[in-house]
Amino acid sequence: MSLVVIGTVAFDAIETPFGKTDKIVGGAATYASLAASYFYDKVKIVAVVGDDFHKEDIADFKNHGIGVEGLQIKEGEKSFFWAGKYHNDMNSRDTLITELNVLADFDPIIPDSYQDCEYLMLGNLTPQVQRTTIERLKNRPKLIVMDTMNFWMDIAMDDLKQTIKLVDVLTINDSEARQLSGEYSLVKAANKILQMGPKYLIIKKGEHGALLFHEDLVFSAPALPLAEVFDPTGAGDTFAGGFIGYMAKVGTVNFNNMKNAIIFGSALASFCVEKFGTEKIRNLSSEEVSARVQQFVGLSSFVIGQ
Amino acid sequence: MSLVVIGTVAFDAIETPFGKTDKIVGGAATYASLAASYFYDKVKIVAVVGDDFHKEDIADFKNHGIGVEGLQIKEGEKSFFWAGKYHNDMNSRDTLITELNVLADFDPIIPDSYQDCEYLMLGNLTPQVQRTTIERLKNRPKLIVMDTMNFWMDIAMDDLKQTIKLVDVLTINDSEARQLSGEYSLVKAANKILQMGPKYLIIKKGEHGALLFHEDLVFSAPALPLAEVFDPTGAGDTFAGGFIGYMAKVGTVNFNNMKNAIIFGSALASFCVEKFGTEKIRNLSSEEVSARVQQFVGLSSFVIGQ
Repeated sequence: MSLVVIGTVAFDAIETPFGKTDKIVGGAATYASLAASYFYDKVKIVAVVGDDFHKEDIADFKNHGIGVEGLQIKEGEKSFFWAGKYHNDMNSRDTLITELNVLADFDPIIPDSYQDCEYLMLGNLTPQVQRTTIERLKNRPKLIVMDTMNFWMDIAMDDLKQTIKLVDVLTINDSEARQLSGEYSLVKAANKILQMGPKYLIIKKGEHGALLFHEDLVFSAPALPLAEVFDPTGAGDTFAGGFIGYMAKVGTVNFNNMKNAIIFGSALASFCVEKFGTEKIRNLSSEEVSARVQQFVGLSSFVIGQ
Repeated sequence: MSLVVIGTVAFDAIETPFGKTDKIVGGAATYASLAASYFYDKVKIVAVVGDDFHKEDIADFKNHGIGVEGLQIKEGEKSFFWAGKYHNDMNSRDTLITELNVLADFDPIIPDSYQDCEYLMLGNLTPQVQRTTIERLKNRPKLIVMDTMNFWMDIAMDDLKQTIKLVDVLTINDSEARQLSGEYSLVKAANKILQMGPKYLIIKKGEHGALLFHEDLVFSAPALPLAEVFDPTGAGDTFAGGFIGYMAKVGTVNFNNMKNAIIFGSALASFCVEKFGTEKIRNLSSEEVSARVQQFVGLSSFVIGQ
């Protein structure tokens, strides 16, 4: 049994009000698999890089127990590269450079050793490639979680909806939920999106936390109020990876476990934004993670007497 | 012992995407005192109206057990009138008319029978009038809660800061917290504002809930996800009134009681927005309030095992 993560493994160059980086390792699959590895020991990546990718970064996946047989290395080609600059409020950013490189014709090859996939994380990618991944798994995974973004709604809405139809959990942010549904009210948006296929919808609201919708149930998860957000890159992928990693750990798909999975995902994401790129989420102790989760408990608990 | 609410009692004309009203009763003290009356039976108003104010609306205060000895009625003058139109997202609005009328030279007279005030709600008004109210109480109340808005930060910041220095709890929204502190991060903003005098700060985030800050403690309260917000007018005043009403009921000022007070205030506010003006919060049963509070419990509770 395993948790397969498909998504980008890439180089990012990030500029925030606090500083800037050279090319550092990034990508949805990188953040998500690292986050998932804190909860589950059979995480495997499907992704593609060029021969410019650093051997140490591949070694680091292995150090986290992450399988890399599905990580294709294209000789003579270059890795996907994104450069962006965050504005002072850290809530918006400009994309400075997008070089697709190896991603342009990415064919997600699933190694035989991945056919034991029980949990599938479809990180942000073209909806077509996400769908192909599902089709190439001989057995339908127990839980498919899909992350996506407004970019695919702008240019490939029909394709996106075909993929959304196949998944169990969709994670998007509030403006994406509005765009996908055509509804301003998030409750109405959620109702419409839940009719598109997914049984669960997670609406990520950044510093305002997250909402989980399922049938008539709603769960509102807080975000940890942070004095400083150093670099928001990858926070959503880290959240999704922590979420599915925790679900794989507990092994039973239900609303209560998903509530906890959102708290664990949020805890990991709150670490992610404390340093540039993946730096912080590469070296967490289980004590740090537990202590952070307890902060979430304290943050949102109250007891109403009779 | 009593809970004194000072603020506007006024006429509003409201237009939303769902419809529009003629002049209906509104004002911060109206919403706050009605909300407080669900939890505490010795609520008393300090406010001013003209002789155009409806006798039935005054009778309705009395029906809710709200004392009106401090409600001045100015013969030959007109009540404060505000007209506004909400945009489609219901998060922003245009003020169409503001007629100060009796409010222009409002002198907050405190009847002797109000000198037993233990809980003081300073509804949104000029900071000078709010301060005068505190000064005219012979004994400093056990708990002073102050609501204010960006308008006073724009035109009377020094005056506002003098009043803020005197209160226990300040309730403002997120953009006001940023404006008052000059900090974008709400954690940094809260730290600065807590140094200005208040021991507790509540940051209202509308559909994203509320944050309570006190020393190093933070509580994040959810908002009830609503399919439709019919009319947001008075929601913040209702929240504040429910908050202080619940505090008066429990009688002990501490962080845990304030967490619950925020939930009860949020529950009342979630009713407020379901109909125009005060319509919904005039006729709630205690069963409805309890059921709504239980919705908040269900919405945000989770149990992390070991």
